[in-house]
Amino acid sequence: MQFIEDANKQALEIMQTAQPTLVGMGIAKDVVPGMHKKLVMHAGPPITWDKMSGPLRGAVIGGLIYEGLAQTPEEAETLAASGEIEFDPCHHHNAVGPMAGVVTASMPVFIIENKTQGNFAYCTQNEGLGQVLRFGAYGPEVVEHLKWMEKTLYPILKEALEIHGPIDLKNLIAQSVQMGDEVHNRNKATTSLFIREMASSIVKTNSSREDQVKVFDFLNSNDHFALNLSMPAAKATMDPVGKVKHSTVVYTMCGNGTEFGVRVAALGDRWFTAPAEIIDGLYFPGYSMDDANPDIGDSCITETMGIGGFSMATAPAIVQF
Amino acid sequence: MQFIEDANKQALEIMQTAQPTLVGMGIAKDVVPGMHKKLVMHAGPPITWDKMSGPLRGAVIGGLIYEGLAQTPEEAETLAASGEIEFDPCHHHNAVGPMAGVVTASMPVFIIENKTQGNFAYCTQNEGLGQVLRFGAYGPEVVEHLKWMEKTLYPILKEALEIHGPIDLKNLIAQSVQMGDEVHNRNKATTSLFIREMASSIVKTNSSREDQVKVFDFLNSNDHFALNLSMPAAKATMDPVGKVKHSTVVYTMCGNGTEFGVRVAALGDRWFTAPAEIIDGLYFPGYSMDDANPDIGDSCITETMGIGGFSMATAPAIVQF
Repeated sequence: MQFIEDANKQALEIMQTAQPTLVGMGIAKDVVPGMHKKLVMHAGPPITWDKMSGPLRGAVIGGLIYEGLAQTPEEAETLAASGEIEFDPCHHHNAVGPMAGVVTASMPVFIIENKTQGNFAYCTQNEGLGQVLRFGAYGPEVVEHLKWMEKTLYPILKEALEIHGPIDLKNLIAQSVQMGDEVHNRNKATTSLFIREMASSIVKTNSSREDQVKVFDFLNSNDHFALNLSMPAAKATMDPVGKVKHSTVVYTMCGNGTEFGVRVAALGDRWFTAPAEIIDGLYFPGYSMDDANPDIGDSCITETMGIGGFSMATAPAIVQF
Repeated sequence: MQFIEDANKQALEIMQTAQPTLVGMGIAKDVVPGMHKKLVMHAGPPITWDKMSGPLRGAVIGGLIYEGLAQTPEEAETLAASGEIEFDPCHHHNAVGPMAGVVTASMPVFIIENKTQGNFAYCTQNEGLGQVLRFGAYGPEVVEHLKWMEKTLYPILKEALEIHGPIDLKNLIAQSVQMGDEVHNRNKATTSLFIREMASSIVKTNSSREDQVKVFDFLNSNDHFALNLSMPAAKATMDPVGKVKHSTVVYTMCGNGTEFGVRVAALGDRWFTAPAEIIDGLYFPGYSMDDANPDIGDSCITETMGIGGFSMATAPAIVQF
């Protein structure tokens, strides 16, 4: 059908001409459309509290404690189940989140503009490894780390970005894919290129030497840091595709830990979901598929754009979790 | 012949078990064996002033001015031709130098130890692009930049290394080769990994913020920076091979811009030379082989160790000169 072919040609052109650019940072409630104090954004298609899997529930609990809406996990669970909290996919707010993908009002986000189409995408800063919210951890050290990211990492990176000016993420990712990243599970080159590009601007910020040391140590310790740049770059690339009438291109793929969902351009905002699958992948020693939660996260927005798993063949190894 | 096979097996084992490690920095006259105020070390096999090509002569002139042994290029030429200056290959002093490879007494050098064999190798800091000594430029801006490298870059990197501790270059290079570097003409990944690894230690040094900014900007501007780490890593790996009796392994390959020379383990320190060839490579627009100097530099120590050109097939592109 010619009109479908034409639509898909247009979709492809939108993807290929996209210019996702890191233009700044902000606090979610100030910059993410529709964000408010009692909204918890999450990965994947829409889901209610009662259907959420353990990791997503854990991240919601951590998010509510981080926001000061609850003091204890029990309080948070009660609040989450009360109907007072709104849950909505990141994807409904031009955002994406890795794993549980929980974003709350006070969290800092990267602001990515697709310069070709003028649309924006948002993503939090990557937390690093170990006990982290995105895997459903919500202990005091998780919340404390999120606070450090809000009070120290974010102001320094935000100011450094203002000093540096926008960063062309398409260029950055194009280079790093040639350096073995597939930018979903391996983000080592992207992270490295980002650090060296930002280094002198970080030193120029109005921050203490001690905090700069912590920022550099944190960035260097976390090869996934740039995942939270490649994901919104892909999101900013794909969102305009979702507006191409009659196109059969899938512009969203994501999981909430219970269901996996896709959206197709021609069918607009409608979600098509199915039970999320258990990943047949690499597990920590002593663990197997029997221990695993069904697939969760918005990070396959990278595959939606055509890289990630599709360029895994040239990636030497995925990096450590 | 069994004794040759045994010797070559031993040579290969020395290469494969080498652990080249960046252990510190120092000033050439303090750390490089045999260095003295009136010695100019150069790339390639031995050569006298009258046989030197333009680029090597230019670098010698710049080196003598940098050392304060001459005030003008004319004075430097007269001095160089007088017999008062000793010329000797870097390779005779456990050192290597890219292109002209000129090393003089005051120049800072990286100190690399092969932890397996206990031997050391030395190399100056890479100057970056544009008008630089290693291509034979000797104008005031070249000497000024060398002074900045001695007075600002070196003390900061030296102190940062002391704070950081030794860096396993074999590990660094193994990673970067998997990230598309061949570590002779492409050193982008190695340079990037080095910067991120050193960043927090650089911030910790007792130096001004302004100088730290300049150091980060310089490192980020120069994708060849890590060439001057991969070269001495290869040198530290190959030097012990040169002591394996009866081995037919070539442990040195290098050019001085007039002659190309090799050394073979079984034949000890003896040089075998032939006229250096004109490179059939990529030239700046408007230039061709007709404009070129014969091959110069110690950097094919990387090929001597087995990477460089031999791993070029997996390198996406060589970086900008």
